[in-house]
Amino acid sequence: MPLDLSHPDRLSATAAAQAIAAGALSAEQLVQACLERIREVEPQVQAWQALDEAHALAQARARDADRAEGRPLGPLHGVPVGLKDIIDTADMPTEDGTVLHAGRTPARDAAVVAQLRAAGAVILGKTVTTELATYTPGKTRNPHDPARSPGGSSSGSAAAVAAGMVPLAVGTQTNASVVRPAAYCGVFGFKPSFGLISRHGILKCAPSLDTVGVFARCVEDIALLVEPLTGHDENDATTRPRARIPFVRTAAEAPPLRPRLAFVKTPVWERTEAGTREAFAELVQALGADCDELALPDSLSEAWDWHRTIMEAELAWHLDAEYQRGREQLSDLLCQQLARGREVTALAYQRALARVPRLVEGFGDIFDRYDALIAPAVAGTAPPLQGTGDPAFGTLWSLCGMPALAMPMMHGEDGLPLGLQLVGRRDDDARLLRTARWLQQRLAE
Amino acid sequence: MPLDLSHPDRLSATAAAQAIAAGALSAEQLVQACLERIREVEPQVQAWQALDEAHALAQARARDADRAEGRPLGPLHGVPVGLKDIIDTADMPTEDGTVLHAGRTPARDAAVVAQLRAAGAVILGKTVTTELATYTPGKTRNPHDPARSPGGSSSGSAAAVAAGMVPLAVGTQTNASVVRPAAYCGVFGFKPSFGLISRHGILKCAPSLDTVGVFARCVEDIALLVEPLTGHDENDATTRPRARIPFVRTAAEAPPLRPRLAFVKTPVWERTEAGTREAFAELVQALGADCDELALPDSLSEAWDWHRTIMEAELAWHLDAEYQRGREQLSDLLCQQLARGREVTALAYQRALARVPRLVEGFGDIFDRYDALIAPAVAGTAPPLQGTGDPAFGTLWSLCGMPALAMPMMHGEDGLPLGLQLVGRRDDDARLLRTARWLQQRLAE
Repeated sequence: MPLDLSHPDRLSATAAAQAIAAGALSAEQLVQACLERIREVEPQVQAWQALDEAHALAQARARDADRAEGRPLGPLHGVPVGLKDIIDTADMPTEDGTVLHAGRTPARDAAVVAQLRAAGAVILGKTVTTELATYTPGKTRNPHDPARSPGGSSSGSAAAVAAGMVPLAVGTQTNASVVRPAAYCGVFGFKPSFGLISRHGILKCAPSLDTVGVFARCVEDIALLVEPLTGHDENDATTRPRARIPFVRTAAEAPPLRPRLAFVKTPVWERTEAGTREAFAELVQALGADCDELALPDSLSEAWDWHRTIMEAELAWHLDAEYQRGREQLSDLLCQQLARGREVTALAYQRALARVPRLVEGFGDIFDRYDALIAPAVAGTAPPLQGTGDPAFGTLWSLCGMPALAMPMMHGEDGLPLGLQLVGRRDDDARLLRTARWLQQRLAE
Repeated sequence: MPLDLSHPDRLSATAAAQAIAAGALSAEQLVQACLERIREVEPQVQAWQALDEAHALAQARARDADRAEGRPLGPLHGVPVGLKDIIDTADMPTEDGTVLHAGRTPARDAAVVAQLRAAGAVILGKTVTTELATYTPGKTRNPHDPARSPGGSSSGSAAAVAAGMVPLAVGTQTNASVVRPAAYCGVFGFKPSFGLISRHGILKCAPSLDTVGVFARCVEDIALLVEPLTGHDENDATTRPRARIPFVRTAAEAPPLRPRLAFVKTPVWERTEAGTREAFAELVQALGADCDELALPDSLSEAWDWHRTIMEAELAWHLDAEYQRGREQLSDLLCQQLARGREVTALAYQRALARVPRLVEGFGDIFDRYDALIAPAVAGTAPPLQGTGDPAFGTLWSLCGMPALAMPMMHGEDGLPLGLQLVGRRDDDARLLRTARWLQQRLAE
């Protein structure tokens, strides 16, 4: 089937990159189409914090010139990407979702931005983040219902991809800041294993948890975007030298053995809405023998306390200057969180950190038996605009640093997207994407 | 000059290892001589916590058998070494200086013990540590005056080497636990750069500061002992893969350029005793143009607060079980320290940790101009037995993770040893030992 190039903004990033490489589409045409779509829906969605059309088009033309002049093309050559506005860019402001950083223009690109440019991507613009990537929402609305939240903290990244304004976006997750907005907006959101992608040049919230994540409208595109972002960066000690992980190839392969899935009810399951429970009951039934239901020990409930202790203690330190000098410009919600974080003792903090490796170890047996866990990504469909929704369904997997993929495969009673979350063994990220593709096909049977 | 082998216990480790390799001396003869010396002076010094003569001799005979059977010899082949009793040994108890751990018999050797055995060393026995390597003294007395402290926390390691009971010993330093006992006992004590030697299998006190150190009676022996202990250990994330550092060769070389030294008065200089001030005035005069006097900024005084914050916060966590379950068996001094540590906020702790890299950076210019800094190792000569002496002279260099060598090159007004401390650039450890040898020769001129 020949590719329909009449609406390049509707192409997957994979298809667009192939069309650009083949000369069937120019980067300029693609970016132009995205900008048109943005003009159309941005007044309602408000996903963008900074977007300079001329600069975006100039990048696209430069990528087209690369091709015309026979220079090697990267895997994302000419493909536009949106970046959460806590990711430093040398050519665009980075304002971190707070007036305290208004007009901030970093001198250098974050490591991931340098990797994106090396891969040929066009940095389309900066997407809205919640206040300092925490819980107080920005201006973005849910593309499916303007009265609803897009989720946070990577609000604009998820909404821009969902609204068809850009095929790919980068965000970050400290608690559920990738999987939650992906689920509410109905796109794929992938939070890879902790330590896979450098955080250098990105706002530090809670570095023991902060993880770069990606948004796209299909698994192939998730693989396409994440592959060039991984790798060692001496400026982020949690990354390490390793061979490039073949995300694209692995995600495209059929699993060598039929995957085994486990549906897990964590201690926060009781917070799910009725629609979520129904959707999962149907899902488990549809999967039949491919999916077991697994009970997790009640003792696991402590993990949410450890996560809060670590997150609030580290937030209090990394946002110490903002708190000390600009408290009156911060939201009450954040002030309260920082005030709590300032009271955490080093003892409680170290104790919580020390629990994590044992927690991860405890999942070892489970991942020996199952390829992936299935859990809700969110309690229900998107809440009203005032908040960003309950992050509790991302907490455990963020704490454990396990790869988690929000998949838009269900709907709530109100017809809005409801995310499924697929969780894999730590550092087995490409396999998780392969399992996700299998799951999609399995459910389409 | 032929080696006098009539008292093998008086040989340097370097000479002994050469004699053993050449077949002029057996490991059994050497260990036998050390055991005789121990029988003679141990009743007064009390440097040993655990020493099984038969087991020590069995190891020595096994090393002699290695040689007889033509097996390759390590650099420490047949040389006895004493180990601070917080370093795990699979064949001897490791009691950590507290009745709470009495009878503790670890299942595995610490990483350094495995390295020592691989280098051919005989693990002679375990030397006395202060209570849990903190400030409450053990039974050891200063070999130069039984009414005086040997210093701490590596009390027995320093005293055993000083009393001629063993040529080499291993200890650890969190504040001044190598340089202080070395100075009081009149031996060389070397605390290498942080991250050079694995701490795996050693009692954790304050892992951001804990450093393995070594004791010997000459610089050559320090180099001989430290060289096989360095290297990467995946169980200690502060170590990293690196080529073996040629300590022995570098320490034996003449400096390619005449070294430049800087005598620095840190903010704790005012705590030095009159004898120390006099000794340093003479030293600086003797060094003439080879040594500048350098003023360090007053702002540096905060470093002692940061060190205490980090140390007490980490101690409180790593000795949490002892505090919670065995408080009545701990000294009042330690209980108070742990109680303070439990109150440190995560904010203060992280803030203190964050200061360290900038502090180290601040010394960059100084080490561009000088090969090493000269500072006191202690305030004065050894104090009475009740304490372990003021650690403040080791604090800054421990915090900065810089290599520091206590050199027994001065005496106080009471005739007891008074340590000079030579401090080098972080990760430039072998050069520091080379500079130390040059300094010895320079002062002998």
